[in-house]
Amino acid sequence: MELYDYQRSSAAFRVRIALGLKGLEWQSLPVNLLEFEQRGDAYLAVNPQGLVPALRLEDGALVTQSLAILEWLEETHPEPALLPAASLDRARVRALMYAIACDIHPLNNLRVLRYITRELGHSEDEKLAWYHHWLRQGFDALEQQVTGEDYCYGGELSLADVCLVPQMFNARRFELDLAPYPRLVAISRHLESIQAFASAAP
Amino acid sequence: MELYDYQRSSAAFRVRIALGLKGLEWQSLPVNLLEFEQRGDAYLAVNPQGLVPALRLEDGALVTQSLAILEWLEETHPEPALLPAASLDRARVRALMYAIACDIHPLNNLRVLRYITRELGHSEDEKLAWYHHWLRQGFDALEQQVTGEDYCYGGELSLADVCLVPQMFNARRFELDLAPYPRLVAISRHLESIQAFASAAP
Repeated sequence: MELYDYQRSSAAFRVRIALGLKGLEWQSLPVNLLEFEQRGDAYLAVNPQGLVPALRLEDGALVTQSLAILEWLEETHPEPALLPAASLDRARVRALMYAIACDIHPLNNLRVLRYITRELGHSEDEKLAWYHHWLRQGFDALEQQVTGEDYCYGGELSLADVCLVPQMFNARRFELDLAPYPRLVAISRHLESIQAFASAAP
Repeated sequence: MELYDYQRSSAAFRVRIALGLKGLEWQSLPVNLLEFEQRGDAYLAVNPQGLVPALRLEDGALVTQSLAILEWLEETHPEPALLPAASLDRARVRALMYAIACDIHPLNNLRVLRYITRELGHSEDEKLAWYHHWLRQGFDALEQQVTGEDYCYGGELSLADVCLVPQMFNARRFELDLAPYPRLVAISRHLESIQAFASAAP
């Protein structure tokens, strides 16, 4: 498989982690977001959304959207499982995943930060305040909602963990004070010691 | 079941549609977002994220996050199916769903619009330009990515449709010019003629 990829894209980072956890072979096709390659004709012909990641399957089919790729991987390569067996547990794991992937990350990705500074004319400090505001809103709740010590949900690795680590990476990169989030920090530290997480990092 | 609900929340609207399509009985527990009830102690004790919707199951368990509720409904009440049978088709439907639920809606919901005007001090016109910008970015791609005439994906109703109708409702409410999106308009018009969609509308 081939992954349209950008090292610092946290959506791509999620997929790299999952590919590693599933033990799959893949090649990176870098798309340089800082040089706007994702909005160039060549990449738009691949993915009209102009976003990374996108996964090219062995048969040539393309799957876009990181969460759709994660669910596809889980359905087609079920071992090791990244969703629990029971529906209620699966819903709880997905709720944690979406709390990150729908309520934090979309507000803080590169295209949005660019709009804040370039279109709306805000300073770097105001951009950082925006970034921290949505991270804190998300992490304040997530700190209460995680149920495990080593993992987000119970005692098993899940898709919530796959989403947490890239978000924590971004939180550190943008220098959020993590003192209010000891559980998220401990979970993340544990996860980052796992090979598939470590080797997927930017 | 009971749904913590707000009429104009498009995330809650998605769940109301799906509950109707699955033929389930449910009661609405209104949470008034305009009066900040979602950030009050009573609701935060229910859902630390302070967001609607949340679904209270018959046994008292709570499921948060609209997309987690949609997937839970699909797993526990599989008829009528809202995801196709084949994994690649499922991935394509989910990609359309996430293109709306991760890349458009999170940027345009009430808490974000409030931040744009109240924290960042922008005018109503600038807020509207923000709103339209992310809608157009999303719809420009979605118009190319839908594959059906009556439905988003092929000839069958799916979770992508469940997400499209609330987003189109918002697009009309915020007066986006829909002329560039004839396929999305036609699909939406068809869907809105279906009882479960019509009766879920705000």
